[in-house]
Amino acid sequence: MISVEEAQDAILKRIPRLGRERVHILAALGRVLAEDVVAPRPIPPWANSAMDGYAVRAADVAGASGENPVTLRVIEELQAGFEASRAVGPGEAIRIMTGAPIPEGADAVVMVELTEPGGEGETRILQSVPGGEAVRPAGEDVEAGERVFEAGSRMGPAAIAMLASIGRAQVLVHQRPRVAILSTGEELVDLDQMPGVGQIYNSNSYALAAQVREAGGEPILLGIARDNAEDLELRLREGLSADAVLTSGGVSVGDFDLVKNTLGDLGNEMHFWRVRMKPGKPMAFGTLNGKPVFGLPGNPVSTMVSFELFVRPSLMKMQGHVGLHRPKVEARLIHPLKKSPERRHYVRAVASYEEGEWTVRAIEAQGSNIIHSMLRANALIVFPEYETDLSAESQVQLILLEEDSALGAQPAFAAGPSSPGP
Amino acid sequence: MISVEEAQDAILKRIPRLGRERVHILAALGRVLAEDVVAPRPIPPWANSAMDGYAVRAADVAGASGENPVTLRVIEELQAGFEASRAVGPGEAIRIMTGAPIPEGADAVVMVELTEPGGEGETRILQSVPGGEAVRPAGEDVEAGERVFEAGSRMGPAAIAMLASIGRAQVLVHQRPRVAILSTGEELVDLDQMPGVGQIYNSNSYALAAQVREAGGEPILLGIARDNAEDLELRLREGLSADAVLTSGGVSVGDFDLVKNTLGDLGNEMHFWRVRMKPGKPMAFGTLNGKPVFGLPGNPVSTMVSFELFVRPSLMKMQGHVGLHRPKVEARLIHPLKKSPERRHYVRAVASYEEGEWTVRAIEAQGSNIIHSMLRANALIVFPEYETDLSAESQVQLILLEEDSALGAQPAFAAGPSSPGP
Repeated sequence: MISVEEAQDAILKRIPRLGRERVHILAALGRVLAEDVVAPRPIPPWANSAMDGYAVRAADVAGASGENPVTLRVIEELQAGFEASRAVGPGEAIRIMTGAPIPEGADAVVMVELTEPGGEGETRILQSVPGGEAVRPAGEDVEAGERVFEAGSRMGPAAIAMLASIGRAQVLVHQRPRVAILSTGEELVDLDQMPGVGQIYNSNSYALAAQVREAGGEPILLGIARDNAEDLELRLREGLSADAVLTSGGVSVGDFDLVKNTLGDLGNEMHFWRVRMKPGKPMAFGTLNGKPVFGLPGNPVSTMVSFELFVRPSLMKMQGHVGLHRPKVEARLIHPLKKSPERRHYVRAVASYEEGEWTVRAIEAQGSNIIHSMLRANALIVFPEYETDLSAESQVQLILLEEDSALGAQPAFAAGPSSPGP
Repeated sequence: MISVEEAQDAILKRIPRLGRERVHILAALGRVLAEDVVAPRPIPPWANSAMDGYAVRAADVAGASGENPVTLRVIEELQAGFEASRAVGPGEAIRIMTGAPIPEGADAVVMVELTEPGGEGETRILQSVPGGEAVRPAGEDVEAGERVFEAGSRMGPAAIAMLASIGRAQVLVHQRPRVAILSTGEELVDLDQMPGVGQIYNSNSYALAAQVREAGGEPILLGIARDNAEDLELRLREGLSADAVLTSGGVSVGDFDLVKNTLGDLGNEMHFWRVRMKPGKPMAFGTLNGKPVFGLPGNPVSTMVSFELFVRPSLMKMQGHVGLHRPKVEARLIHPLKKSPERRHYVRAVASYEEGEWTVRAIEAQGSNIIHSMLRANALIVFPEYETDLSAESQVQLILLEEDSALGAQPAFAAGPSSPGP
């Protein structure tokens, strides 16, 4: 058995960044740029007024005050979107609105609150201003030719604003991975069927599809394969056009042989099939025509935790993200925890951040079949392989699954009483 | 002028939760349940085996050990998905796979590793097990009739797994808000046009559309209205079927009069139009046929910050979310900050969490026209109205805009050198 880190390394070194596609900037939201972006012109494109006021020559108003106002002749009114038809000469001013280009000859703007109406066609300036006052110089935000984004940048709303402001309607981003999802097991029925005796609903396909979507991928549901090679191969073939294949179930002991053999017949090379962790020891990884194939365990919690540790970072890498992993923090454990040695445990837990401190308590029921444990959790405690006892008040490492909940901005779980620590 | 909190209160008390709609559980991802969900049957539906092994009567194997194995007659093999045809009698066992229902008569499972093959049709049990060993009782995860979700719960991947596991294919969720977005200003051109002299690209519509989408809403782009009542009214009417209307630009001093009057002609009641904050003082809020209308300022940073403080919480409330606001933390400011009194400042900043401590530094260029300041920021420092000096090392309140970046899991900004503090 290999460690989680060895497994992650073995996987990630085989995960390619996906190719590029040109999309509208709104479709680029949340995605990763696959090109450098250079501004063709400066922003703002020309010096412009930061205020509503009067564009003046600073020298003209050098001595202005409330007692000794300077009267200037107003030669024009200038709205944003237009250009002055005349230059501002000595003793002259142009009424100017926020965002309008600074007229030739003017070098400062006096805000309207520091002026009063003069005679017909005149304004009285009540305060001196230095040159450059209320003037936004050309290129203040972005210089012409500036590389505003490097490939690899994640496009949030402010990035979309920047792209629009330099006139870009489309950008190259990395493609989103299409992820084929196959559940296996004679005991499974789909949501449109009634489970017979001994049968349960297929939940893993939906859990994985939701996780794929949250990670930015596009799920392709291949349904439920029965325990025979024909059905399995038929369904797996449907998934071969995808960028990654996930199977769940049938990975324990001998059960995975059928999946493994069928994948092998299709050309899959298996790289490992067990990881020193709990939940999720039976976790297989192969490549088929260079595409990653993840054989995830069948228990619902094992499936979801394995996705978090191995599939999500892979999907992040495919999309060109720089940070592949969830945030990790140190937290104070508020009760003792025990386990047997050898395997690392990922303990479903509720983390909270209050008064400058992270604390965490484990969910009581930790069975790998207990969906409630995953539902209530907003974090995973990393319980190291070689440890068997964590005492109350000890510092533990957490993987945050829901930062906003852990930081108190969203309740972790709206339904029912939260589970107490063990 | 009113405070930010007064403005938020005045807005949120007028924001309705939107109606319900029935969607497939995968479409419910990230959305808020608008019904309680009760489990029609328990999970698991029947006691089942946690392991591959032998279903036995614990009493039969009470004395079993490596030296004194107990030999049992194997009367059947049971896969997951099927039911045993016979009960386990004294001296008998059923070979059982993980997930298969515990046969009648049996009360424990001995994992296969604690057995060895016996004679033809026999197994030798090498260790005694207590009753209930490796048996997952019916209803261990969910009891029949249990209310697994209350209305108001946010549906993450584990919630989708839970819904599937109880056989729910569809659920009632709150509708997503459709948000009409209108930019105003003679200086604006859209991305498919070349800006003339004095003109700039419309970036606010795209920034707001991205923010709406990130907040779970559906943007409707109404384009750019020219500064005349006819064009404005025509475009605003297009937006009246939406759940909220956002305008940006033209809110300063007299400029907003046209927007305000046109909205008034359509039946809008204005509740306030200035907030004691920077950036974003000129920020108007009204209701039109009960629907919220946000008049956002025109400078790009002001627009985005106003969205964060006023529109985003409103969209969260419409969708039924319990937590409406971004997470807030206290952080150590690593340099002094100054401002004039009266207005609260929201200072664009880079926050980071390292070794148990939040630190923050302001972006250097804070002009409300500097998109770079928003692009580089992952947090806003809340600089209180009445303060004028924050010393280095003082504790400040932060609003986290990108928790994963602040927690170190994603770089805040992939392009170029990050801006130093002032």
